[in-house]
Amino acid sequence: MKTIIVIGLGLIGGSMALDLKNSGKYKVLGSDKSEININKAKKLGMIDHKADESDFSEADIIIVATPVNTIADICYGLLYNISTETLLIDVGSVKNSICNKIDTHINRGNFLASHPIAGTEHSGPDAALTNLFRAKTNIICDSDKTNAKLLKKGKEMFRLLGMKSIYMSSEDHDRHIAYVSHISHISSFMLGKTVMEIEKDEKSIFDMAGSGFASTVRLAKSASSMWTPIFIENKKNIVKSLDEYIKNLQEFREDIIKENKESINSTINKTNHIKNILKGI
Amino acid sequence: MKTIIVIGLGLIGGSMALDLKNSGKYKVLGSDKSEININKAKKLGMIDHKADESDFSEADIIIVATPVNTIADICYGLLYNISTETLLIDVGSVKNSICNKIDTHINRGNFLASHPIAGTEHSGPDAALTNLFRAKTNIICDSDKTNAKLLKKGKEMFRLLGMKSIYMSSEDHDRHIAYVSHISHISSFMLGKTVMEIEKDEKSIFDMAGSGFASTVRLAKSASSMWTPIFIENKKNIVKSLDEYIKNLQEFREDIIKENKESINSTINKTNHIKNILKGI
Repeated sequence: MKTIIVIGLGLIGGSMALDLKNSGKYKVLGSDKSEININKAKKLGMIDHKADESDFSEADIIIVATPVNTIADICYGLLYNISTETLLIDVGSVKNSICNKIDTHINRGNFLASHPIAGTEHSGPDAALTNLFRAKTNIICDSDKTNAKLLKKGKEMFRLLGMKSIYMSSEDHDRHIAYVSHISHISSFMLGKTVMEIEKDEKSIFDMAGSGFASTVRLAKSASSMWTPIFIENKKNIVKSLDEYIKNLQEFREDIIKENKESINSTINKTNHIKNILKGI
Repeated sequence: MKTIIVIGLGLIGGSMALDLKNSGKYKVLGSDKSEININKAKKLGMIDHKADESDFSEADIIIVATPVNTIADICYGLLYNISTETLLIDVGSVKNSICNKIDTHINRGNFLASHPIAGTEHSGPDAALTNLFRAKTNIICDSDKTNAKLLKKGKEMFRLLGMKSIYMSSEDHDRHIAYVSHISHISSFMLGKTVMEIEKDEKSIFDMAGSGFASTVRLAKSASSMWTPIFIENKKNIVKSLDEYIKNLQEFREDIIKENKESINSTINKTNHIKNILKGI
């Protein structure tokens, strides 16, 4: 049986480990800087056991699912110590800074940059879910730089998780994902912050918050250990998208001050179109 | 059997009509500026029949569930034409401008200002749901201005819907609700707008949007007919809360530009506390 090692047994790594182990096709070993997480992962049936140093050189696939600011260094080091047959996959939410670093590595062909788009606002091994990736999109970046045979192996693994893979450059990925994911998180964090600053009485937030507020602020429960590095690694694109977002808020604020009903109506009506785009998500 | 008339058979009015009719305790009549909505409401079993002019003077309770900019005028007129035993309830999301107008009415005692906090991003009679209000909060405003006997009748009706009523001034309501509900909607509308402006290729939004984006942008599906009037009627409080929100976004943007990890971490960690506040919503 082939061996997969998952480094970083949090929500994403843990959920991948769970499904890969449940598939019965792989022996799944785990690695995490926290011994507590490794023990939890073992107890929750995600991994067969902790990966030993010797396991890395023999693994069929190694998945790196750690915070994005640590991925490039971990991968760079590992690429010196794996077999020619080993595929090293990273699953971070930022891709360009990681790819740029790995591009200079002599074993670049053993590396596959991916971003499986799935998750919740929770974190750690306890947050791992079976079938988290089923019917979701996986983005594979700069795939021409991965050895063709190893790329095929990576695609098969994502297929096993139930994912549909799409392809783009790491640069395009970071630009798109800033708009479609990263500013959602900032918008939600800042909404939570604003409400909590003003509404000192927590009971009144609880009493008056409807399901709409709960839904908009859901991502504000996400962990800083994951998100601070993402915001910094994708700084250029995030600041640009945030500027557009703030500009739109300021224009809408002006429309409200001027009671410009036609403009407010037209903005809302156009935005309602998101309904059709997101059908089924 | 006592009669309730619901004016405005959309999401809120329609859902109230459904539960009140299903309770078997009331004959439920409906009124709506759209004949199509009245026919739909009849077909969906929400109302017994359309309310005739003569029904209003004999109704036990009349609920006004129309867009907030129309409520004050509708109520002002109705208050001249109802019996002393009739309770007129409005269920709009803005309360102060409505109460201020009704306060000058000779029959102010027959009026109850309420805001049942429940809803979805959908609208119209087809969006009505049974049990929408169960275990939710209802805000009753300026209750000392309602005739005590009629107030009791209103509270009983909300209890029948499964709601817990809390009490505050219409001014406090509008201030709190701007933070806890109205800016959530603006944040979501503007997020949807920003993404759609930049991502001209709708397929890439669909492919790359995870459940996080879908959740944050859910309220952007809400109807302008309901929300434009709310933004204008609660302008003062919304602009204030929007200013706080924009200020927080700008500060966070600065932190990202400066790569101020400590500040970003601390902001996120503090905001994570929303988890405990919203437990169960």
